[in-house]
Amino acid sequence: MMGPAGGCDATQRAWAYLTRVAEPPCPELISFVRREGPIAAAHAVWTGAEPEALTELVAARRETDCSGADLELLANRGGRLLTPDDEEWPALSFASFDIGGPNAKRQAHAPIALWLLGPARLDQVAERAVTVVGTRAATCYGEQVAGDITVGVVDRDFAVVSGAAYGIDGAAHRAALAVDGITVAVLACGIDVPYPAGHSALLHRISQRGLLVTEYPPGVRPARYRFLTRNRLAAALSRTTVVVEAGLRSGAANTAAWARLLGRGVCAVPGPVTSAASAGCHEMLRNGEAELATRAEHVIELAGRCGELADEPEHPATALDQLDAVQQRVYEALPGRGAATVEEIALGAALPPEQVLGPLALLELGGLAESRDGRWRLRRNRGLSRGAADDRSAT
Amino acid sequence: MMGPAGGCDATQRAWAYLTRVAEPPCPELISFVRREGPIAAAHAVWTGAEPEALTELVAARRETDCSGADLELLANRGGRLLTPDDEEWPALSFASFDIGGPNAKRQAHAPIALWLLGPARLDQVAERAVTVVGTRAATCYGEQVAGDITVGVVDRDFAVVSGAAYGIDGAAHRAALAVDGITVAVLACGIDVPYPAGHSALLHRISQRGLLVTEYPPGVRPARYRFLTRNRLAAALSRTTVVVEAGLRSGAANTAAWARLLGRGVCAVPGPVTSAASAGCHEMLRNGEAELATRAEHVIELAGRCGELADEPEHPATALDQLDAVQQRVYEALPGRGAATVEEIALGAALPPEQVLGPLALLELGGLAESRDGRWRLRRNRGLSRGAADDRSAT
Repeated sequence: MMGPAGGCDATQRAWAYLTRVAEPPCPELISFVRREGPIAAAHAVWTGAEPEALTELVAARRETDCSGADLELLANRGGRLLTPDDEEWPALSFASFDIGGPNAKRQAHAPIALWLLGPARLDQVAERAVTVVGTRAATCYGEQVAGDITVGVVDRDFAVVSGAAYGIDGAAHRAALAVDGITVAVLACGIDVPYPAGHSALLHRISQRGLLVTEYPPGVRPARYRFLTRNRLAAALSRTTVVVEAGLRSGAANTAAWARLLGRGVCAVPGPVTSAASAGCHEMLRNGEAELATRAEHVIELAGRCGELADEPEHPATALDQLDAVQQRVYEALPGRGAATVEEIALGAALPPEQVLGPLALLELGGLAESRDGRWRLRRNRGLSRGAADDRSAT
Repeated sequence: MMGPAGGCDATQRAWAYLTRVAEPPCPELISFVRREGPIAAAHAVWTGAEPEALTELVAARRETDCSGADLELLANRGGRLLTPDDEEWPALSFASFDIGGPNAKRQAHAPIALWLLGPARLDQVAERAVTVVGTRAATCYGEQVAGDITVGVVDRDFAVVSGAAYGIDGAAHRAALAVDGITVAVLACGIDVPYPAGHSALLHRISQRGLLVTEYPPGVRPARYRFLTRNRLAAALSRTTVVVEAGLRSGAANTAAWARLLGRGVCAVPGPVTSAASAGCHEMLRNGEAELATRAEHVIELAGRCGELADEPEHPATALDQLDAVQQRVYEALPGRGAATVEEIALGAALPPEQVLGPLALLELGGLAESRDGRWRLRRNRGLSRGAADDRSAT
């Protein structure tokens, strides 16, 4: 084992060492690296010369330098270690926290660097991406909607970010791959750790066509607090987070909270109120923490450029919509069976007979009424049943 | 046929005549009756001596006096004709419209009188009632939720108002009757008209245990515009309207619009975004026209007295919730298989070994960890799987 500054690509070795030496996010280490540069900072930590505020945070792991092996593993798989010095480093919006008090919201800080695997360019992806998350205990309904929304946003050239978990996450990744979209899996473990195990093949496909992203060096196992840390990154890497299904206690709601904190859009998809898998979404909607989304266009309204607005839903229209109030009353007074005189219709419509003639002529022209021998009746077979009118009659 | 002022109960005859002589709502007739009293107003209309503004509105039906027969039919069924002079007349909140311009929102006016059938007292019912409405083309889901919400509000001593239509309306009425609640059907036709035909028995049960209410005199058939007129009354007769399922074009959305206009609460129940029967509810929620309700308590928050608030949903809790950040990191660093030394755990948790001992002892006390021969491990069989933690780990 050698010191991190001793390798051939000293800068890369230093960054790799720094991603492991403190549990991320570690604002104290980020400040130190920003001030000293990665090589000097890594060397200081390695030799115990770091600032006092850092000592406790790096003491346990300072002697563990796997940077050579980590970078070799990464190179063998065709991955790369992305640092804030690279052009590809995405805009993550943590700046306001990085300059704030260090412990107010400890997790609200950027990663020190990112381990990447896949052909997509992270900065470009993050500029036009939607994060689709939800419960692992998804229903068929939830997986279907996650897929539908994913396909819709991919159609509009958005990348789809998620967490590679079972359930909604998996449905989103798979749908994006199915329509040749770019999808990004943000991991709570090393890039070489196949978690969850059942998604090994999915992770491999994502790494070949999209991107695996993690702030954890190779070999690091997922842990409860790492999922929470990962969630902030999944939210930061897109313009809007949409929660498709979430129980009352859900990592997806945590990702949505991060999206709010970072000034991203947040949507939640409703579902049956009888479904525990939608309870978290309904709670967020009731609390005003998310916009209600039923389709991809609603998500794009929040994630897209100014003016990328969803179409208004089409309200079914009928021929009767064109009638004014008097014409409607005359229409309703037409008998369904038999036929009626103008006077009878006038009585039914509570109108003077002379006010009924004009509307009757118009209704006949419109194919809604017919007359024979001076008696009038409803014209049938128009696919409209008057008795069924109440459900089509909002004004 | 005789003039309306000539009967034995002249006042009742006058009111009955007035409910038929103009199509309601008729603010001009209401003003005239308020000024002249019902007998003088009815006599003036009967003899053609009404104000000019009324003439066109009453011309077609002024010679039709069925008041004697109508009241006889009502008496035979045990019903009553309720007028604004009665103590039982409910507070309908149309006052601000009644004094406004006559045609600005023509429907926004009180009924001239109400035909009632049933044992409940309308003024008392309206003081603590919820209107439950929705599409006739309801799904099983919608009917189930309508029933659940109805039972919940009846449990809290609310009456349930609806429109006696197929689908959601029927489910609400039936659920209220099933738990001995008071339910009110507001009709778009005469009290003797069994509409819809398939609800004849339901209407009969409502009239025996709750209330049938209509502003239309006996024999009047439902019509498209009468449903819209009825909707305003269904909204006015309760404190809050809840829409359980509604298509994009729905009478239920119209009722909700009336509730908003009258200053009542409005709730909508979400459903699957794949269900056309919920599309109208989602649209109302997206437009901020309704509060999201998933259960009766949410409706009661809007309909009830000050302080009748819904309980916060119970978020499932685990033993791990009590751990602070350092304890959590130690917990996560415990091996699932085998056992680890304090030094190994300290490395995994990125903490100095001396900071690990305290948390380990606490975890042992809490039954989350166990030690043997100086090596530590996770204590199993607590119903908690660490790998499954992400979905239970919102903060």
